Amino acid sequence: MLTKTQLSRLRALREKKNRETEGLYVVENPKVVAELLAAGTVFAEIYATPAWQSPRGAQPVEISPDEMARISHLPTPSDVFAVGRIVRATLPAGELAHGLTLALDGIQDPGNVGTLLRVADWFAFDRVVLSPDCADLFSQKVINASMGSFARVKTFTAELPAALASAGAPVLGCDLGGEDVHTLPALRDAVVVIGSEGRGLSDAVRKFVTYYVTIPRYGGAESLNAGVAAAIVCDNLRHAMAASGSQKV
Amino acid sequence: MLTKTQLSRLRALREKKNRETEGLYVVENPKVVAELLAAGTVFAEIYATPAWQSPRGAQPVEISPDEMARISHLPTPSDVFAVGRIVRATLPAGELAHGLTLALDGIQDPGNVGTLLRVADWFAFDRVVLSPDCADLFSQKVINASMGSFARVKTFTAELPAALASAGAPVLGCDLGGEDVHTLPALRDAVVVIGSEGRGLSDAVRKFVTYYVTIPRYGGAESLNAGVAAAIVCDNLRHAMAASGSQKV
Repeated sequence: MLTKTQLSRLRALREKKNRETEGLYVVENPKVVAELLAAGTVFAEIYATPAWQSPRGAQPVEISPDEMARISHLPTPSDVFAVGRIVRATLPAGELAHGLTLALDGIQDPGNVGTLLRVADWFAFDRVVLSPDCADLFSQKVINASMGSFARVKTFTAELPAALASAGAPVLGCDLGGEDVHTLPALRDAVVVIGSEGRGLSDAVRKFVTYYVTIPRYGGAESLNAGVAAAIVCDNLRHAMAASGSQKV
Repeated sequence: MLTKTQLSRLRALREKKNRETEGLYVVENPKVVAELLAAGTVFAEIYATPAWQSPRGAQPVEISPDEMARISHLPTPSDVFAVGRIVRATLPAGELAHGLTLALDGIQDPGNVGTLLRVADWFAFDRVVLSPDCADLFSQKVINASMGSFARVKTFTAELPAALASAGAPVLGCDLGGEDVHTLPALRDAVVVIGSEGRGLSDAVRKFVTYYVTIPRYGGAESLNAGVAAAIVCDNLRHAMAASGSQKV
């Protein structure tokens, strides 16, 4: 049984400022908790009702459904409440020079940020760099939409213009009026920058784009969802690499 | 000024059953209302505060911010409240035999359904067919995520197994273990079926799949978001068509 203090502390984590102060994030979607555990996440604390089908290795503190209802951040509480430690890595110098990077320039929709992590994971990108104005990487919406990729993909938060200025690798920007994405060269090292849903790539970032790619459009839509656009670029880049044999996969 | 009866009628449209009874849908995102108007939507009613920048051709009923707050379905009311007529078309026999169709098999996330409409619009698919268990096409979340594509793409709701059984065109299913999506033939007529987020393609639909395609995976993610997977298939199908010259676009 949890004390009143424990209950209010866990409930208070629904406020971002309290999570930041404690350096903790919360996940309550049972499928995502299981995915994160499978990906090697070591949670600081896990609370679960007897109904939770605990995956191997998880040692939850058992609580009642009533207690769960009191700590939950969701309108409809689930059977598990996992608390993890926020670890924010600083981008080391030279990090972007090797391998594939997905850089997010002001992606504010948490669902899109999660989808983009999943795309980076599927296409085995080496890292994702988020500009500081992206949605909070440690929010439940981002973590849920990433479907466990949150735990597998290396992430950094950094000012993109400075990071791209010293990238040491080609910087690909997705835009109208660039080269057809199907003619992408096989690049072993590259940074793919995805602009925000509303305004596209920021001017500060455009200065450092060395290659614009365009997804051919056939119909009436003015733009594609950020996750969708990124996925098409990543798919074509990986295909160019596979076709040229520049990297066995 | 609206009467009390008018105010409560509009507010009551927040319940799906009331929208169905009246045969009406509601859009309150100003950008999406503008996109829909630009795409030729004729709304049954538009209510707007003086702050709304009315696009050409719109003739809103002016209401006060206080009235808007009373009718709005959003936690934070916007400046416009547009009401459209729900039109649900029955799938005519033989409709799927010609051109490109995107079929959604139980896509329940409204954001995904909206994204898929946008993808179908971008790649100029001739129509989208939704199984009856998809998210409600006329919900604000779907319409908002479609960014106006809702008004440009021809949509039908139909039982997929029956529709596919008599499709008269190849049925492409996206799955693990199919042909590499980059080797897709140029198909002028095809139905691309996208399975639900949780369970993939249903067994009833699988019976009618004539060709499985797979998006090559390089990393750890178990699956891709439904909108992302559809977009990659559509991009590669359009590319195969363009490369073979089977359709000038």
